[in-house]
Amino acid sequence: MTANGATGDRPGRSGRRPGQSGAREAILAAARARFAEAGFDKTSIRAVAADAGVDPALVHHYFGTKQQLFGAVVQLPVDPELTLSAVDAAPLDRLGETIIRAVLSVWDSPAGDGVVAMVRSIIAGGDTSLARSFILEVVLERVRQRIATPEDDGRLRVALVGSQMIGLLMARKIVGIEPMASAPAEELISAIAPTLQRYLFGEI
Amino acid sequence: MTANGATGDRPGRSGRRPGQSGAREAILAAARARFAEAGFDKTSIRAVAADAGVDPALVHHYFGTKQQLFGAVVQLPVDPELTLSAVDAAPLDRLGETIIRAVLSVWDSPAGDGVVAMVRSIIAGGDTSLARSFILEVVLERVRQRIATPEDDGRLRVALVGSQMIGLLMARKIVGIEPMASAPAEELISAIAPTLQRYLFGEI
Repeated sequence: MTANGATGDRPGRSGRRPGQSGAREAILAAARARFAEAGFDKTSIRAVAADAGVDPALVHHYFGTKQQLFGAVVQLPVDPELTLSAVDAAPLDRLGETIIRAVLSVWDSPAGDGVVAMVRSIIAGGDTSLARSFILEVVLERVRQRIATPEDDGRLRVALVGSQMIGLLMARKIVGIEPMASAPAEELISAIAPTLQRYLFGEI
Repeated sequence: MTANGATGDRPGRSGRRPGQSGAREAILAAARARFAEAGFDKTSIRAVAADAGVDPALVHHYFGTKQQLFGAVVQLPVDPELTLSAVDAAPLDRLGETIIRAVLSVWDSPAGDGVVAMVRSIIAGGDTSLARSFILEVVLERVRQRIATPEDDGRLRVALVGSQMIGLLMARKIVGIEPMASAPAEELISAIAPTLQRYLFGEI
């Protein structure tokens, strides 16, 4: 696990008007509780601020957007916005390839170790509600908005994409199934991108 | 976790000629150590029997084949042979569909809870060597033998199949990504079987 959010902890201190580092901790604790209880969509910065006894502007000051606050709560080792903006910008006929290329570039980077540690701890902990909320409401929702049509909301399609990406992470980084664990990224991209493209746009 | 292998444990008892229940435990302990150290392929019933101080015939008597002994060591809640024999019998043009159909029928059965518990505990425990050995050398190897050609040993192909099946297990049973978590099995089979078939026989 990464250490962000663990700095400035003062166990003996509490109250409605906490100091600077106490406020940061109070916001994180309130956000963790709200996100776990209500999920990403139904949690507002305003409600988190009220629970923490601070002004909403202070939440934005410390953590930025609601998505970045969520990233701090689940202790994401990387800013998901970097990957998601690549997905937003991709042409639709290369959306599958863009997704696997962007995701592999994070997992195969030094920051990938943090992702693996996070996934392990989520699964081991037993409470997968935050992970589910993050995958469904932040990551897959961004992809879904790009493919939804009046006839098909795209929910099953993006869930299928998510399942193949989770399986790739497990095979490459956690269980270590050869030759996927050590294959060059380009080999996996050419094998898996057509799967994702079919899940997103093909006959399913 | 299931309780097989945990019966008849007598902590105070040991020795080169253990009694009936002690022998069973000694065989399991020896097999666990050998499989973890050397993997499935390089472990022999003879070596396990020697380590446990019993006759190889007694190992077969208690546990059956080496694969069944392995199943007892990793506390598999189901006999993998039931699924694997379906894979052996499938026509090649329906191999992908057969795999996902057989696997889903186990996961969606009452025994599936045991599979989920096993996967969780393997990931949480950190030591994935037994899981890797089981997936690679028992399950995927049986599929690989059906698709290997002189030009392509099929290792990457079956690993890709494994990654999609692990991802399906995670999405449906562990993280709970809707609508995959509650979709009818037939809907998932029709969406995913073509992926597996392409991984096994198509352009990758």
